[in-house]
Amino acid sequence: MPRTGESQNLSLALLQTMGVKKKNRPQVLVVGAGFGGLTFCQSFACREADVTVLDRQNHHLFQPLLYQVATAGLSAPDVAQPIRSILRRQKNVTVLLRNVTGFDLARREVLFDGGSHRYDYLVLAPGSVTSYFGHPAWEKHTHGLKTLDDALRTRAQILLAFEQAENSASDDDKKRLMTIVVVGGGPTGVELAGAFAELARHVLRRDFRRIDPAQAHVVLIEASSRLLGQFSKHLSAKAAKQLTKLGVDVRTGVGVEKVGDGFLEMSDGKRIESANIVWAAGVAANPLAKELGVKLDKGGRVPVGPDLSLPGHPEVFVIGDLACVHDEKGHPVPGLAPAAMQMARHVAKIIRDEVRPTAPQKNRAPFKYWDKGMMATIGRSKAVAQTGKFEFSGWLAWMAWLVIHLLYLVGFRNKAAVLFQWTYSYFTYKRGARIITSAPISSKPN
Amino acid sequence: MPRTGESQNLSLALLQTMGVKKKNRPQVLVVGAGFGGLTFCQSFACREADVTVLDRQNHHLFQPLLYQVATAGLSAPDVAQPIRSILRRQKNVTVLLRNVTGFDLARREVLFDGGSHRYDYLVLAPGSVTSYFGHPAWEKHTHGLKTLDDALRTRAQILLAFEQAENSASDDDKKRLMTIVVVGGGPTGVELAGAFAELARHVLRRDFRRIDPAQAHVVLIEASSRLLGQFSKHLSAKAAKQLTKLGVDVRTGVGVEKVGDGFLEMSDGKRIESANIVWAAGVAANPLAKELGVKLDKGGRVPVGPDLSLPGHPEVFVIGDLACVHDEKGHPVPGLAPAAMQMARHVAKIIRDEVRPTAPQKNRAPFKYWDKGMMATIGRSKAVAQTGKFEFSGWLAWMAWLVIHLLYLVGFRNKAAVLFQWTYSYFTYKRGARIITSAPISSKPN
Repeated sequence: MPRTGESQNLSLALLQTMGVKKKNRPQVLVVGAGFGGLTFCQSFACREADVTVLDRQNHHLFQPLLYQVATAGLSAPDVAQPIRSILRRQKNVTVLLRNVTGFDLARREVLFDGGSHRYDYLVLAPGSVTSYFGHPAWEKHTHGLKTLDDALRTRAQILLAFEQAENSASDDDKKRLMTIVVVGGGPTGVELAGAFAELARHVLRRDFRRIDPAQAHVVLIEASSRLLGQFSKHLSAKAAKQLTKLGVDVRTGVGVEKVGDGFLEMSDGKRIESANIVWAAGVAANPLAKELGVKLDKGGRVPVGPDLSLPGHPEVFVIGDLACVHDEKGHPVPGLAPAAMQMARHVAKIIRDEVRPTAPQKNRAPFKYWDKGMMATIGRSKAVAQTGKFEFSGWLAWMAWLVIHLLYLVGFRNKAAVLFQWTYSYFTYKRGARIITSAPISSKPN
Repeated sequence: MPRTGESQNLSLALLQTMGVKKKNRPQVLVVGAGFGGLTFCQSFACREADVTVLDRQNHHLFQPLLYQVATAGLSAPDVAQPIRSILRRQKNVTVLLRNVTGFDLARREVLFDGGSHRYDYLVLAPGSVTSYFGHPAWEKHTHGLKTLDDALRTRAQILLAFEQAENSASDDDKKRLMTIVVVGGGPTGVELAGAFAELARHVLRRDFRRIDPAQAHVVLIEASSRLLGQFSKHLSAKAAKQLTKLGVDVRTGVGVEKVGDGFLEMSDGKRIESANIVWAAGVAANPLAKELGVKLDKGGRVPVGPDLSLPGHPEVFVIGDLACVHDEKGHPVPGLAPAAMQMARHVAKIIRDEVRPTAPQKNRAPFKYWDKGMMATIGRSKAVAQTGKFEFSGWLAWMAWLVIHLLYLVGFRNKAAVLFQWTYSYFTYKRGARIITSAPISSKPN
C-alpha cells in the first residue's frame, strides 16, 4: 500500500544507493559495531565516502554494564541499542547483519557467509572473544560474558539454581546449586562476584522458604597474586577487602586446573562443587585475525603501524581489542572502551583527510593513547578508581563510576531506563530483571 | 560464611517449615501463578493454612501486554515479575518451580516430574495454551504468543526478517520477508497487527537504506465475518477501519487452509508468501485437564459446580481459563484476566471460611461473574472499549486502556518502567526493545 510520500522516499533512497555506485565513491567498510566501529562511524562524518558497517548482531552492546544483565539488575534492551537506529541520521552509512568469515586483501574484499563486499578502506573492529587458555572444552561447563545471550543464559542459570535448591531435598545438591564460582579477578570478575553476593544476600534473601540464599557461597578465583592486576596494589587490596565484606570468598594465587560438569579443580588441589561457574578469566583476540594472513602477536592480536594500519596495507586499519598497539612509554594499550574509541577517532580523521578531494594530502599522524584511568565497581557504594597518580575508592569512586557509565551509555532512553533501575534498586534492594527465559526445567527430581 | 543474624533467620525459616508439617496444618496447593493463581494467593490471607504454588515459570506474566514485547515496545522484565518476589511477605506461601504432569485425586496428590505433592485443597489455575485447531504441525511454521519466550522469539524473527530483507538482492525474498501475517482477529490479533504496522511504518522507517520498511505488508486474517467477535458490531467496524488506516490489510471471513514454511493458504484459494506468520487464532484449555479423568466440554475445559469445585471433589477447584462456567444469563464466562481474578477471590473465600476453626461452617456460595467489559488497543490513540451497554473508541478508549493496564500491572517497578517506555515511544516514535537475542544468522546468502 504505497502512499505518495512513501514512494517518493523509497525512490530517493534507491537513487541515493544507485548514485553511490555510479559515482564510484570511496567505499569504507567497518567490521564490528562495538565501541571502535560505532565511534568510527559517528566521528567519520564525511559525505564524500560511503560507509558500510557489518556486524553479527543487530545491536551495539554497552559491554561495561553487561554484568548487570547477568546479575538480574538490568534488562537486555537497557544495555543495547540497534546499530541502525543509532546511525539512522547518517544517510551515507549502511548497516548490514553479516557474519564476516575472511578477507581477500589483494582484491580488497571482505568475505561473509555466501558473498563478499569490496572496500577502498577497511576498518577492522571485531572486538575480542572469551579465552579459555587452551581448554576449549571448558566452555560448555562455564558461562562466558561477551554477548547479551551469554548474560541472559548466566542470569537464567543462577536464578534457576536457586529455584532448584528450593526444590531439592539433598543438602549436597543445595550446596552445589548455591555455590557461584567466578573465575578471573579482573574488573569483570570483581564486578560479577560483588553483584552475585549482593543478589544472594540482599535481593533473594527473603523470597525463599526452604533455603536461605544468604548462605550462598560466592567464590572469586584469580591465578595471579592479587585482584585487579592493572590497578595499584593499594586499590587491589581495597577491592579484596570490600568483596570479603560483601561475603565473597576471594582466592588469589590459585589457578584453575580442571573444569567439569558441576565442579572445578584448582592448582592448590582443592575442588569446588558448583552448578554455576562463570568465566571472566580472560579475553582473546578475535579469531578473525588469523584470516588476515599476517603474523600475530602472542595474544593473537594484529601488530599495526603507528597510524594503526596493517603493514603493507595502508588501506586496512585495525582498531580496538584486536590491535596490538603500544603507548609512548612502550606499554601495551589496554583492551578498554576508551582506547578503542580513541583509535576509531584517529582512523576516522586519517580516512576523512584522504578521501576529501579538497584536503591537501598529509602524512598520517601516529596514534597516541591517552590513558584516562580505570575503574571497577564492587557493590553498593563500593568501587575503586585510578586516573594517573590519583586514586580513590568507596562511595566517591562508586558515584564516579555510576555517572561515567551513565554518560557513556548510548541513547537517551537507555540512560533514563538505567538511571531509573539503579535508583529503584538502591532504595528497594530489589532487582528488576529476575526473569528466567529459555531455561528448561530439569526433568530429574531434585 | 553464616553470620549470627543470618543463621538465626535460617533456623527460624527451617523451624517454620518443620512446624508446618508437625502441626498438620491444611495444605492448599495452587497450580499456576497466572492471574487466577496469583490472585488466589494474594486474597487468601489466611494464616491457618499453608499454601504452595507450583508453576513452570519463575515469573507471573502480565499477558495483556505480552504483544508489546513481541513488537519490540517493552522488555521481557517489564511485563513479568518473579512469583516468589510478589508473594515474599506472605510467609505461609511457598513457591516452587514445578512442571505438573498429573493428579491422583483419590490420594489427593499432584504429580510432577519425579515426585508428588499432597494437598487438602487444590486450586487448579494452569491457564490455556495456543490452539492450532487440530493442526499441531502448524506450530513450527508460526509464532504463538503465550509465554515470554514466544514473544522474544516473535520479536527476534520479525526484526531479523527486516535485517535479511536489507541484505537481500531478490525482490521476491524482500517481499516475503517484509510480509507479516497475523492469524486471528480477536483482541490479541488486532493489537499485534496494529503494533506491527506502526513498527514498520513509523519506528523502522528511516533506519534502513536498501528497503523501505513502510512498504511492509501486514495482513490480519479472521475466519469469522468480523474482527473482535465478542464486541458490538459497531466497534468491530471501528476497529477494522482504524486498522486499515494504519495500513493493515484486514481480511475477514477467510479461514486458514494450510500453513507451511514461509507461506499460508486461505479458504478463498489465495496464498500469501510470508516469513513471519504469527498465530493469535485461538486458545485451548490446558491439556493438563485431561489428567483429571473427568469429562471435559468441547473446548477441553473442566465443567465445575456453582462453587467452582470439581463435581464429586469439593476439595478441588478449577479457576480461570480452564473452568467451564456460565454467568447468570447462561453465557459462558470468557477467558479473561478479570474473570480468573474473580474466580480466585471466590475460591479463596470458600477455603478460608472452611479452614478457619472459629468460622461457622456455611454452605458454599455460588460464583457470580461480574462482566466489567472488554477493550482492545489498535495503535497510537486508537482503541475500542465496551462496558455494559456503553461503548467508546478512539482517544478516550485508548487512554482508558493505558490507565487500566498500568493499574493492573503488578509491581511498582513494572508500572514505572512501562509508563516511561510508553511516554518515550509516544514522543519519539521509537521503541525501546529492538534487540535480537538468540537468533541464528542465516548461513544462506539472501
